[in-house]
Amino acid sequence: MKINYPDGRIFHNKPSQTSLDVDTTNAKKKMIFGDRGMTLEEEINESNKYYRSHDIAVIYKKPTPIQIVKVDYPKRSKAVIREAYFRQASTTDYNGVYNGYYVDFEAKETKNKNIFPLKNFHQHQIDHLKKCQKQGGICFVIIKYVALKRYFVMPADNIFAHWDAQKHDGAKSIQLADVVDCSIEIKADYNPTLPYIKAVQQLIESGKEKK
Amino acid sequence: MKINYPDGRIFHNKPSQTSLDVDTTNAKKKMIFGDRGMTLEEEINESNKYYRSHDIAVIYKKPTPIQIVKVDYPKRSKAVIREAYFRQASTTDYNGVYNGYYVDFEAKETKNKNIFPLKNFHQHQIDHLKKCQKQGGICFVIIKYVALKRYFVMPADNIFAHWDAQKHDGAKSIQLADVVDCSIEIKADYNPTLPYIKAVQQLIESGKEKK
Repeated sequence: MKINYPDGRIFHNKPSQTSLDVDTTNAKKKMIFGDRGMTLEEEINESNKYYRSHDIAVIYKKPTPIQIVKVDYPKRSKAVIREAYFRQASTTDYNGVYNGYYVDFEAKETKNKNIFPLKNFHQHQIDHLKKCQKQGGICFVIIKYVALKRYFVMPADNIFAHWDAQKHDGAKSIQLADVVDCSIEIKADYNPTLPYIKAVQQLIESGKEKK
Repeated sequence: MKINYPDGRIFHNKPSQTSLDVDTTNAKKKMIFGDRGMTLEEEINESNKYYRSHDIAVIYKKPTPIQIVKVDYPKRSKAVIREAYFRQASTTDYNGVYNGYYVDFEAKETKNKNIFPLKNFHQHQIDHLKKCQKQGGICFVIIKYVALKRYFVMPADNIFAHWDAQKHDGAKSIQLADVVDCSIEIKADYNPTLPYIKAVQQLIESGKEKK
């Protein structure tokens, strides 16, 4: 059973659908026991759970920001939000701490096999990553090519270069070869599902070499 | 005009109220132009805005986690959340990066003049702060004594000591004298409203001395 967790994307994809019921209990079960067909978000959340429970890193996905308009307070029952809207996040989706380093990243899936479209990013995400990097944070993007089942940790600097270049060269996407070239490839595994902290460690070490 | 932003506390305080309308536009205006009667959350958010715009630190309040149950997708209009509930956060409210350091903290107001009740904390917040500190994060609590108009940055270690001690000594609160003794006092100011990063810098420097 496929469960769609509502966020901005699903709203855009399914504008004609009404009253989508989200069974979060089942969604949770799927996250815990599923090891096939996981979304990148689920894979990262599972990995973060592993990293936290093993004292390797403390990294969380931030909750989706919601603009609340109306709340009901029924007697002898908990508050019910009756009108609210999805807001655009001003930051990236994930942040936390690993071995003294601030870690900040965005996760993006693509169904394309040869390119990664830059429209996957918003200006505010790029700006946020730039600001965090300036403060000494370890910043990157995890890209999943769904059809290829390949995962890459792409350093933020390389994203910035492509993002800023599109104003001049007009390129609306990054070629797979370029992603392979500048990123650290990681393989889906078991415990953690996606061992991306290994790549973070490599980024830290390569940063030290540069200095 | 006082605007109550709905969160867990307000739900508990006003169980009999129905259909509270939240005008976030006015709430925003109040945050920008108000300099009196701000809540601690508003003061910290304003300060964070200042720190970000001056490239001093990148720290945000995390969105309130919401469990979404039902979403309507009206034609030619944006998605409307029609049933959702406030969830308890598994982390603290604020985190980010300052000068290469991961910063993680909780903000607590009290109306008491002599004590700070420990029931202001939840076990999961203490656990989260402990885990972050273990990873090398700079962890603390900002306490505001509303009646006294005094603000303290209390290092997480001191919170842990009082929290863990209550199992044995049964003390349900921290005396003001103890808070004064172990914390860095900060004064409300203008730009930033609450210059807590100065205290963070002191915490970092005192940590270095210990090593």
